Amino acid sequence: MNTSGLSRLGQRTTEPPISWLMSTALARPNLISLAAGFTDRESLPVSEVRELLDGLLGSAKTGRVALQYGTTAGDAGLRQLIGEHLHRQDGGSVPASLYSPERTFISSGSQQLLYLLSECLCDPGDLVLLEDPAYFVYLGIVQSHGLECRGIPLASDGIDLGHLERTLELLKRSGAIRRLKLLYLVTYFQNPTGVSAVWEKKAAALELLRRYEKAAGHPIYLLEDAAYRELRFAGEDVASLLAANRAADRVIYAGTFSKPFATGVRVGYGVMPERLLKVVLRLKANHDFGTSNLLQQLVKHALASRAYDQHLVTLRARYAHKAAVMVTAIRQHFPGSVEWEPPRGGLYVWARLPKTVKSGMKSKLFRAALRHDVLYVPGELCYADDPTRAKPNHEMRISFGGASVPDIRTGIARLGATLYQSLDP
Amino acid sequence: MNTSGLSRLGQRTTEPPISWLMSTALARPNLISLAAGFTDRESLPVSEVRELLDGLLGSAKTGRVALQYGTTAGDAGLRQLIGEHLHRQDGGSVPASLYSPERTFISSGSQQLLYLLSECLCDPGDLVLLEDPAYFVYLGIVQSHGLECRGIPLASDGIDLGHLERTLELLKRSGAIRRLKLLYLVTYFQNPTGVSAVWEKKAAALELLRRYEKAAGHPIYLLEDAAYRELRFAGEDVASLLAANRAADRVIYAGTFSKPFATGVRVGYGVMPERLLKVVLRLKANHDFGTSNLLQQLVKHALASRAYDQHLVTLRARYAHKAAVMVTAIRQHFPGSVEWEPPRGGLYVWARLPKTVKSGMKSKLFRAALRHDVLYVPGELCYADDPTRAKPNHEMRISFGGASVPDIRTGIARLGATLYQSLDP
Repeated sequence: MNTSGLSRLGQRTTEPPISWLMSTALARPNLISLAAGFTDRESLPVSEVRELLDGLLGSAKTGRVALQYGTTAGDAGLRQLIGEHLHRQDGGSVPASLYSPERTFISSGSQQLLYLLSECLCDPGDLVLLEDPAYFVYLGIVQSHGLECRGIPLASDGIDLGHLERTLELLKRSGAIRRLKLLYLVTYFQNPTGVSAVWEKKAAALELLRRYEKAAGHPIYLLEDAAYRELRFAGEDVASLLAANRAADRVIYAGTFSKPFATGVRVGYGVMPERLLKVVLRLKANHDFGTSNLLQQLVKHALASRAYDQHLVTLRARYAHKAAVMVTAIRQHFPGSVEWEPPRGGLYVWARLPKTVKSGMKSKLFRAALRHDVLYVPGELCYADDPTRAKPNHEMRISFGGASVPDIRTGIARLGATLYQSLDP
Repeated sequence: MNTSGLSRLGQRTTEPPISWLMSTALARPNLISLAAGFTDRESLPVSEVRELLDGLLGSAKTGRVALQYGTTAGDAGLRQLIGEHLHRQDGGSVPASLYSPERTFISSGSQQLLYLLSECLCDPGDLVLLEDPAYFVYLGIVQSHGLECRGIPLASDGIDLGHLERTLELLKRSGAIRRLKLLYLVTYFQNPTGVSAVWEKKAAALELLRRYEKAAGHPIYLLEDAAYRELRFAGEDVASLLAANRAADRVIYAGTFSKPFATGVRVGYGVMPERLLKVVLRLKANHDFGTSNLLQQLVKHALASRAYDQHLVTLRARYAHKAAVMVTAIRQHFPGSVEWEPPRGGLYVWARLPKTVKSGMKSKLFRAALRHDVLYVPGELCYADDPTRAKPNHEMRISFGGASVPDIRTGIARLGATLYQSLDP
């Protein structure tokens, strides 16, 4: 009997393990956290935002707009600018109509978009496909909504297409494909691995999904989360799946200004099929009837004035530097048996230990790292509950985003010492 | 068969009728909307916010805090200030522990709090009690979540306690009380009626709920929505239910800075039992892992510097004036058979026509009002779907919040002309 009075969702939703990591970090002042997904403090655009807001609020006209309710979908001018920005990034040959304000809405960070879509598409027991490993806050949504998962292994250039096809085939044979609603991919400098998907792979994934739609009996969406796209400091940008063939009715693109501009300014956006957007907006109206207009106007002015583009230049140089510091420190301090790739963007390095070495929250290694006053995200937290495989437990996510340059050096040295002790005791 | 691929919630959630009202208002530039729940444009604190943000972003230290992620629960200092503010309002004799930061969290407007609570407490088919008539955006949440409702008639001093008791008794006898999760009340200058609940009535309602908890088998919460509390321009404030006997484990208080400060700054808050808050915060983490820190720091500085209190003085004088303009115009232009009360706070006047005159969206009156270029909110939109009674359809909500003073005069004159034609054709 349920004497709590909570809903099934309320009962089901567990405390995210990351909360424990965060409170541990806060409670131990000497601890260096390479776990947090925070962004770099020093490059936050404090003076730029001050100037933009001063301009915005310096006139009664624009000031009043910023301080009044907006619409549920968000400011039309901002949606237009976002569309133009994305269209430029994806290359001008894609029809502009795919990036139209009518297909776009503004969310409170891209996290809210992930939530709204899960609510809108998935009942408890429904299935989602995602990367193995995956963005762990999305795993929280999945857990809360009682969804089933299948993880698709992630290689250094995107997901394993053969595995995706075998998974779809198995789901088709068992009939479970009728509960499959979407494939969720973080295609740029993925959280937690830092991997970016090449165009061919993600486009092929979209085609594969389409081949199984008849068996599903409904659309299977591909949700492309591009949260880290603009944090690229090496290599070339890849077009988003909005540029793919027949993308208009199946691709959902999630973007954000949190990571590339300021995480205290929670403005994200989604571009998606209009039919789906219509339903998402009904839910958004019930959630909050629209993201803060002040934040939206701020981002709009940052885009229009090019302050945003200028900030990206600074930010990329900053993260390139911090990543280089981390790479140098890892080369110096980590045992050679640890596998990792130098990042080309984003905030993370993903380190794979020999499979015999456990890295989980209850492992000797994790406790030893805490004794050395350094914190990482255990890889196991980044794997969905997938009944078809065991969770790998020998990896770690380390971030150069929030930590200062000296803390990156010291933190990696501490982690390296911990690893040497644990790998070669 | 569901070929849409939408969840049950996605399929269930309908377009809110208010969307149609809003798009109608936007599409007809000569229309005077007395329908919108927008706040007064001219008194928006543009220069105050500019100054506060300039100070906040003028130092790298406070600026960086504002532009970085905060915590899911929200800024501890802001929660502390909110508690002190509420405690003062409720009178110092209530234990301060009821207003502690540990019982408080920051939401994206109080609307998000209403959503999170519904999610956290209610499964489809569960029951909520609410006022008859009620805040219609809450009705959207209720509809979307597939909840059943019972409306408790609202008198000029709060809900009808006899009716509440009879309803609880009937639910107990049928066993449906096991699905009853909460009573939702807007206790200050209610939307849509402008009615405030006297202390005795709301305290008695809380006691009544408690008497039926044994039959329910779980807590029955009382959610007190105080969105308009600070928009009082006549009469005395009433303590919130947090000050009631044994309130700590049953009362949820929802407050906001949207209406009294700036609707473009979406910062609301909830004070509630810690056990419940723990679950709400898990959901909040999945929704957006915390409301924009920039907005929170802005509100914190507005509270700390007393800019907020000073703004309230301006705002109350402004709404007192606009309400007086509307009252004078109604006295001049409305037929004597229309019943209404002069407001003492909030944004609304509720007008009751003779019961033979329909006011709904499909009524002759509503169409005639549109021809006269004036828009009101039909009363029927403010009634929950309650199978135990028919929806009244002879009332209207008219707002003096968003319209300018000349528009209030002209709008009421137009509405009066429409009413005379319809009541005495």
